[in-house]
Amino acid sequence: MVKRLKDIGFGLSSTKNVKRFITEDGRFNIDHVNKKSMFQSTYSYLIRITWIAFFGYVLLAYILVNTLFAVAYVGLGMEAISTYHSPSFFENFFNAFLFSSQTITTVGYGVLSPSGTAAGILASFEALVGLLSFSFTTGLLYGRFSKPKTLISFSRNFLIRPFENKSALMIKVMNTSRNILIKPKVDVTLILHKSENGYYKPEYFNLNLERKTIIYLPTTWTIVHVIDEESPLYNLSKSEIADLKAELVVLFSYYDDAFNNEIYDVKSYVHEDLKMNKKYTKSYGYGEDGKLMVDHSMIDDLEKL
Amino acid sequence: MVKRLKDIGFGLSSTKNVKRFITEDGRFNIDHVNKKSMFQSTYSYLIRITWIAFFGYVLLAYILVNTLFAVAYVGLGMEAISTYHSPSFFENFFNAFLFSSQTITTVGYGVLSPSGTAAGILASFEALVGLLSFSFTTGLLYGRFSKPKTLISFSRNFLIRPFENKSALMIKVMNTSRNILIKPKVDVTLILHKSENGYYKPEYFNLNLERKTIIYLPTTWTIVHVIDEESPLYNLSKSEIADLKAELVVLFSYYDDAFNNEIYDVKSYVHEDLKMNKKYTKSYGYGEDGKLMVDHSMIDDLEKL
Amino acid sequence: MVKRLKDIGFGLSSTKNVKRFITEDGRFNIDHVNKKSMFQSTYSYLIRITWIAFFGYVLLAYILVNTLFAVAYVGLGMEAISTYHSPSFFENFFNAFLFSSQTITTVGYGVLSPSGTAAGILASFEALVGLLSFSFTTGLLYGRFSKPKTLISFSRNFLIRPFENKSALMIKVMNTSRNILIKPKVDVTLILHKSENGYYKPEYFNLNLERKTIIYLPTTWTIVHVIDEESPLYNLSKSEIADLKAELVVLFSYYDDAFNNEIYDVKSYVHEDLKMNKKYTKSYGYGEDGKLMVDHSMIDDLEKL
Amino acid sequence: MVKRLKDIGFGLSSTKNVKRFITEDGRFNIDHVNKKSMFQSTYSYLIRITWIAFFGYVLLAYILVNTLFAVAYVGLGMEAISTYHSPSFFENFFNAFLFSSQTITTVGYGVLSPSGTAAGILASFEALVGLLSFSFTTGLLYGRFSKPKTLISFSRNFLIRPFENKSALMIKVMNTSRNILIKPKVDVTLILHKSENGYYKPEYFNLNLERKTIIYLPTTWTIVHVIDEESPLYNLSKSEIADLKAELVVLFSYYDDAFNNEIYDVKSYVHEDLKMNKKYTKSYGYGEDGKLMVDHSMIDDLEKL
Repeated sequence: MVKRLKDIGFGLSSTKNVKRFITEDGRFNIDHVNKKSMFQSTYSYLIRITWIAFFGYVLLAYILVNTLFAVAYVGLGMEAISTYHSPSFFENFFNAFLFSSQTITTVGYGVLSPSGTAAGILASFEALVGLLSFSFTTGLLYGRFSKPKTLISFSRNFLIRPFENKSALMIKVMNTSRNILIKPKVDVTLILHKSENGYYKPEYFNLNLERKTIIYLPTTWTIVHVIDEESPLYNLSKSEIADLKAELVVLFSYYDDAFNNEIYDVKSYVHEDLKMNKKYTKSYGYGEDGKLMVDHSMIDDLEKL
Repeated sequence: MVKRLKDIGFGLSSTKNVKRFITEDGRFNIDHVNKKSMFQSTYSYLIRITWIAFFGYVLLAYILVNTLFAVAYVGLGMEAISTYHSPSFFENFFNAFLFSSQTITTVGYGVLSPSGTAAGILASFEALVGLLSFSFTTGLLYGRFSKPKTLISFSRNFLIRPFENKSALMIKVMNTSRNILIKPKVDVTLILHKSENGYYKPEYFNLNLERKTIIYLPTTWTIVHVIDEESPLYNLSKSEIADLKAELVVLFSYYDDAFNNEIYDVKSYVHEDLKMNKKYTKSYGYGEDGKLMVDHSMIDDLEKL
Repeated sequence: MVKRLKDIGFGLSSTKNVKRFITEDGRFNIDHVNKKSMFQSTYSYLIRITWIAFFGYVLLAYILVNTLFAVAYVGLGMEAISTYHSPSFFENFFNAFLFSSQTITTVGYGVLSPSGTAAGILASFEALVGLLSFSFTTGLLYGRFSKPKTLISFSRNFLIRPFENKSALMIKVMNTSRNILIKPKVDVTLILHKSENGYYKPEYFNLNLERKTIIYLPTTWTIVHVIDEESPLYNLSKSEIADLKAELVVLFSYYDDAFNNEIYDVKSYVHEDLKMNKKYTKSYGYGEDGKLMVDHSMIDDLEKL
Repeated sequence: MVKRLKDIGFGLSSTKNVKRFITEDGRFNIDHVNKKSMFQSTYSYLIRITWIAFFGYVLLAYILVNTLFAVAYVGLGMEAISTYHSPSFFENFFNAFLFSSQTITTVGYGVLSPSGTAAGILASFEALVGLLSFSFTTGLLYGRFSKPKTLISFSRNFLIRPFENKSALMIKVMNTSRNILIKPKVDVTLILHKSENGYYKPEYFNLNLERKTIIYLPTTWTIVHVIDEESPLYNLSKSEIADLKAELVVLFSYYDDAFNNEIYDVKSYVHEDLKMNKKYTKSYGYGEDGKLMVDHSMIDDLEKL
């Protein structure tokens, strides 16, 4: 029998507006309030964002920090960094900004250079700040590189379709690389929201799967849950499933041969992602030379039965 | 039956002054004497301290090393680094300090530059020291970043309260992030100190838990040990527990989906942390938009039954 | 009985030209088409290539980027970076290239230095680019270092030879280091292609092994599959095995004591690698001083029975 | 019964001069001949050596590389890097050496600076070499830091002594840090060399242990193998054990809470390390304030029974 995961660790509260439990980017769909701001969150954030956003922040920080130091150098008087003192504030500020950038990057051409106690100390401190910042950036860059990347992708939709005289729920995953993925394992949890006194109450079901693990994943694998009498989906229509605000949480793991790491991936489907009575289009095949090919553009393709 | 962990690996000696076994920061409460100072301990220390302390040490080391080199340059005579020789010792030292900082950070403006054999070699060596130090700091920074951070927090108190016609010991943990924590597991050891000939002798008990693992930990989880006839806490009052100098050692582990790492965390409670006949205030709920919210400020809140 | 791995996760399509399933460098022999180019693939690529190729790319990138910046500086007019303006375009370009390289590496001698708004900003930006690039390179270098290296090698051929009144398939592995390899484990999958309507259809067999694991691997280990009635290779001749386009996939894992890592390695043999009725030459022995020696040049040696 | 590990994976050859199987620094005592020199071995070597040796190599490499570049600059003529040309070869070489060091560390004061095509290109290349070398060093330094360090130490001797009406072999390990070591596990293999036709033939025995694992290791743990009728050591005297060239291989593992890593450690004892009828001196106790203390200087201490 299917275990009802009363105590799966999910909150049991209910609400009229049911939100998805896990977001599309694989995080809990939860607001944290009164959280003490943590340095670690900033690090996690800078690891997670796109490369464009990352370099945007780096450039922004570079301009900002140089501006701050430039203001300080201008405050000390231009004679502190240059033999040339322009009457134009902007020109002075600009030279101070250049001096600051030459100091923080440790280029130090020397045409602009500090003279006097205050400028000397400030420049000495700025060079330290520069080196630490770039150590920091190196750490962040390597953190971004070494973050284990999932090498699989899930088809956009999950299916319910006739299967061997019964019906079955199906989910398709694809190995998106040539890396040898060893012993992939899968675990699927279904969340249904029953209505009670005008509130929805989530219930959690661990779905029986035809097969929970395989040895290698070279191309694609279609995960199959047979909808028999014991399935919580037994005899449910698409609209009934929509009314129950069904959500599927897929926990997928495998050993990545190239990086020697056990990788976990979590994917969530909501009822809008369900297609009835379709099948996945086969997205691999053999080329003319007999070599196996995988077509990434076909991972989401469906076709009539 | 509860196993008596006679041989859990804990020392069996006893003393009149019972100290906690594990400190609040999750290390053994043990003094190591005659320990050979190890480089590795220094590294561990620099990884463990706060960011403020870390940058404090960096700044201190920067000033110290520059001072040492400055003394050496002054010793070589100011003509070794500058065309300008001040009669003031302080001004010379200050210039030497600036030259040292410009060398060690590899800024090298060139206004100050080495001339002569000794200063040339020393500056050449100092630049190497500088680069190695910043390589070192980069390593330390990344070591600090990549140290697996625990993403859970424990409630300040543990409880003993009525529970289903019996009483139970309870401990509450919270996921402090939106990361998906997979398959959290818990293991609780109770230490009681029995008095014998005026000495306390520790005894170790592995507590039976209602549930040792769940699938996901999205918000909070209350760990429950039912105090039945087999529990070492059966029929003990708060003052009896205090007399036995009770300590709870909680070993918690989970798989962190974002960093693909199995994380362990150890938490220790002493008898002063026990509250009787209270319950944990629910610290998550639904906002007006139906989205789940976790309130970090409520993790320690207790309320009347 | 030997399990027929119908559902091992391998594609079941067939073709007239059978290609090997796993390439010699341990990746799936699959073409990925319509794959979105991913930054991560570039990183994986730069981690995987040889050191010579790696440094070749670095040098190429260095020349390319400096050329681009040099063109920009020449475009701004030579007075922007130098007091000396040559009538020769090439000489100007060359000086701009040197200035660029002095800026991007943050050497900054100062003989060439930016003057004017545009050159100042560009040089300031180039120094940032330089530092980021070298942070990047540091990350890549450490990624290359820390990529777990497999410390075993496989003999070039696999054997089928008489063994204890039967015959057996044998594969030899060698520990190529002095690192203590703990608990090596092995798993061998055989792929045979049966002909059907002019097409080959792959079948997968998990081979029974005499021993699947040992405690330590100090020198060499010969993996043995006894070919009895249950073996898919029972009574097959070399030419029949060739007709079936046999491929062996060996999944090998062990714990590396020096790097504290579980390492996986996948090796594929095709039928051309099969030698009949030979045995592996023993590739270790004792020197005159009684010390065990392993001879790397003998790993592939075979001899008559 | 004790399993005879005929097939433990150890070589079965024999010799008159028996050498220890595993060296004191925890590597196989094996000579590798005809091994292709591998970059990876160099990396492993630089990770393994002491800090003093490491910095010695860095300094040596620094001097060597600068010497090579200095020779090249001198070859180009001193006017290529300096306005000052000394008649003394040594002085010129020294200036070229300083210029090289100022370039490779990217200090670039500018007093010495390249002029002309060849020197410009060479300096431009040297600065790249410098940055790559320091990226390299950063990678090595972090590799050294992050190499999992074992936090336990073994007592210098192993014991055979009376124990509960029988005798027992004992090995003592100590947690040398305050880190919480979770679930230490141990596995002991005994190697005996039986004499046959004037040759010694090693035999491998997996020893039964009183206890193979404990929950935490706060101070010390004495591993006990009871020498009963089934033990290969039954009724053997110290001189018989010496004649059999006994060697003990201890495989120890635990989970390190501070670094979230499973750590393995291998220790080998030879028969010279055996002490009969002694006991380990207790090396921890309570201070006056009741706090547990571990005395590192006592780990090797033995006393009379």
